[in-house]
Amino acid sequence: MKHLLSIEDLSRQDIEELMGLADNFSEVLTREIPIVPALRGKTVVSAFFEDSTRTRASFELAAKGLSANTINFSSSSSSTNKGESLRDTVETISALGVDCFVVRHASAGVPEQITKWTDAAIVNAGDGVHQHPTQALLDCYSIRKKFGSLEGKKIVICGDLNQRVARSNILAFSKMGAEVVVCGPTTMMPVNIESWPVKVESNFEAALEEADVLYLLRIQKERKGKVLLPSLREYRTRFGLTLERSKKLNPNAIIMHPGPMNRGVEIDPEVADDPRSIVIDQVTNGVPVRMAVLFSVLGSKTQLDSLINENGAN
Amino acid sequence: MKHLLSIEDLSRQDIEELMGLADNFSEVLTREIPIVPALRGKTVVSAFFEDSTRTRASFELAAKGLSANTINFSSSSSSTNKGESLRDTVETISALGVDCFVVRHASAGVPEQITKWTDAAIVNAGDGVHQHPTQALLDCYSIRKKFGSLEGKKIVICGDLNQRVARSNILAFSKMGAEVVVCGPTTMMPVNIESWPVKVESNFEAALEEADVLYLLRIQKERKGKVLLPSLREYRTRFGLTLERSKKLNPNAIIMHPGPMNRGVEIDPEVADDPRSIVIDQVTNGVPVRMAVLFSVLGSKTQLDSLINENGAN
Amino acid sequence: MKHLLSIEDLSRQDIEELMGLADNFSEVLTREIPIVPALRGKTVVSAFFEDSTRTRASFELAAKGLSANTINFSSSSSSTNKGESLRDTVETISALGVDCFVVRHASAGVPEQITKWTDAAIVNAGDGVHQHPTQALLDCYSIRKKFGSLEGKKIVICGDLNQRVARSNILAFSKMGAEVVVCGPTTMMPVNIESWPVKVESNFEAALEEADVLYLLRIQKERKGKVLLPSLREYRTRFGLTLERSKKLNPNAIIMHPGPMNRGVEIDPEVADDPRSIVIDQVTNGVPVRMAVLFSVLGSKTQLDSLINENGAN
Repeated sequence: MKHLLSIEDLSRQDIEELMGLADNFSEVLTREIPIVPALRGKTVVSAFFEDSTRTRASFELAAKGLSANTINFSSSSSSTNKGESLRDTVETISALGVDCFVVRHASAGVPEQITKWTDAAIVNAGDGVHQHPTQALLDCYSIRKKFGSLEGKKIVICGDLNQRVARSNILAFSKMGAEVVVCGPTTMMPVNIESWPVKVESNFEAALEEADVLYLLRIQKERKGKVLLPSLREYRTRFGLTLERSKKLNPNAIIMHPGPMNRGVEIDPEVADDPRSIVIDQVTNGVPVRMAVLFSVLGSKTQLDSLINENGAN
Repeated sequence: MKHLLSIEDLSRQDIEELMGLADNFSEVLTREIPIVPALRGKTVVSAFFEDSTRTRASFELAAKGLSANTINFSSSSSSTNKGESLRDTVETISALGVDCFVVRHASAGVPEQITKWTDAAIVNAGDGVHQHPTQALLDCYSIRKKFGSLEGKKIVICGDLNQRVARSNILAFSKMGAEVVVCGPTTMMPVNIESWPVKVESNFEAALEEADVLYLLRIQKERKGKVLLPSLREYRTRFGLTLERSKKLNPNAIIMHPGPMNRGVEIDPEVADDPRSIVIDQVTNGVPVRMAVLFSVLGSKTQLDSLINENGAN
Repeated sequence: MKHLLSIEDLSRQDIEELMGLADNFSEVLTREIPIVPALRGKTVVSAFFEDSTRTRASFELAAKGLSANTINFSSSSSSTNKGESLRDTVETISALGVDCFVVRHASAGVPEQITKWTDAAIVNAGDGVHQHPTQALLDCYSIRKKFGSLEGKKIVICGDLNQRVARSNILAFSKMGAEVVVCGPTTMMPVNIESWPVKVESNFEAALEEADVLYLLRIQKERKGKVLLPSLREYRTRFGLTLERSKKLNPNAIIMHPGPMNRGVEIDPEVADDPRSIVIDQVTNGVPVRMAVLFSVLGSKTQLDSLINENGAN
């Protein structure tokens, strides 16, 4: 694997292998000294052109757990203020000797574009409404940890289906053999939804009752949520996971959310802490999954066993 | 010690032990390679919701001197911009596998609140007008280095007594056996000052003459200083350490300030560089004291001796 | 070498030695694990009071390649917001135990001023219109890599000669035995240009034809460029390296630029990617050159050989 740009580029076999790698790194993270020298001497730059707490920190900890060098490129304190083109910025950072760019950008396609300007590996950490592949992978991994496999599981995704998380996850879940049902206001349905590998269900409560996994998307209050919805209260009334509705969800089902949650909009405050919620596990699983991704694009597979067994302290 | 939230939670014995630990780390910092592997594999997140140069850098260097991993969480480039609650932010960072939060926040009580949301250790790096315990510890350590002990020393604290530095230091100094005298404009005296373990002295010059330690607080020009004072010039006239007044201070006394100093307000420019000033030593002492605090909440005491003698380069 | 403030402080011999050191570090950077323990235990603070992508990242990677500890001081999130003087800020950071300040500041002379307030080594990373010595060194190194030596080479520098890059480079190039020709609008010529070791050539095309090196300076569109020029289009017409003009440049000549480039102003987009351009090599060469500078001010020369041959992974 040279880059990770989109779930589209991965086969089911590829995803299975990444999950297996993530299992190895999960074990590493339970050690007293949770570091392996697998990427010692490699430099990973985190190039985030959009705000992020969890994704940026998750990648940084993943890189450090592999003993990679990390540098931050923050668009606000940089020459992009001086009108430098994205291409020149990328070529410059690349020329400094960087091995991998972790890129987040508001425009779809930027990470792929960047592959043309550098020999470094590119990992897409979210590009516009296009893809957020490491989110999809950590979500697959979280479901697999819970149920052993995604095969045949019924996964209901509710919210704004035009988001990158929806796109990546639907693709990943169906590749892994799950049955995906989507739900949400018609204004939040992609126009070509019929061509997607999903079943559309307009009745949220009907969908809910049969779900093994209920995946709630974030309502982007600060962005287009305002335009697409009559009101947040109206959204909660029709599609929010209220305490009432949560009782209709199977006791063995799990509740997922990519975070940050809008408590009181897509999920009620008390339901956010329901024992079926694995929202916090999703965050925790992000680190070994991103270690697996970084190792796949930068590491030497023949050395994997010895690298994982060698202590990072040496 | 699980957390460090307030000087109130520490006994005199606890403070003595932290000073002893800080002595060990002071010695480490004089070595050619001033690093020990005491916290190797631990991750410390610096979560500062208020600006800071010295405290943030001091904690970061302390963590690095112990070989801990450090990550920065800066509120301006984070999901708190997306309206995420503080609780969700903390739970998310915690789920990434963080061992310790170093927290600064404008509201009193936030560090204690955070202990309910994570299993990680919490170190209070300043919360509103409540506490700034590592400042108090480094100040005790600085006085102890100078005089051997705080027992029986007369410490005059002058300025706005409603600040967190005043609260923490008064508590720490009196626990360590010092006699604390406070001084300042009546508008800057807490309403319940009679219940504090201090003597109030309205005549700054009288207090000055008997002091072993003169501790000047910072006038917060950019905040409430404006409201509580007729003018900065008026403050200097009555409570500033002018060159004139500095002559009344005992030749063996020491001058302290938590920084950053307002030269020309609470202290005259030429007095800031008086040989009795230990302001720079306070900064230097902050690093081993914070190493002692981080080690106390995260380290394994049985391993202390070997960890300190083992070179960080290995 | 205690500090690096200006090219004026270096003899030709000093520059040759730095180039030799940079050769050693260039070799280190080609290794599988491109790290040496030469500055293990040293702390380098990057104190940038002006925006920068490439210079800041280049120094940070150089420091990490030498195993130094790095901390960032960013003026926007610091006590300088609270009105702390530059001197107190420097003394505070210094008291934390920092070994080297890498300083960029909008005012000429600040790095030299700082040497009076700390025992740490100071490296000037650009001060106002005064100097940018590491840029000059990496440019010398890039030319030397291409031609073996600067001796007798004809170097044409075109643009705003009042910039710090112009000042440092002219001095460095002529010290190394090159013949320097300068070119640009009369509004961008220093008033005392006759006293500089350069030949002034008003006809850009005439200068171009004889150049071994064409060094284009950046037009600071966002700053004074606006004042000094009738228009950017006018600049391009008279002094831009257009495709047309690039044909007059010797096939063996090289094109240099300190970046970030204004494609379409001082250089046409297609010429920026001309095979004679070594702009990207300049960036790459910045890392070993800055390793050489940091090692010169902080390292122990007697240990150089063993340090370079010892692997950073240990």
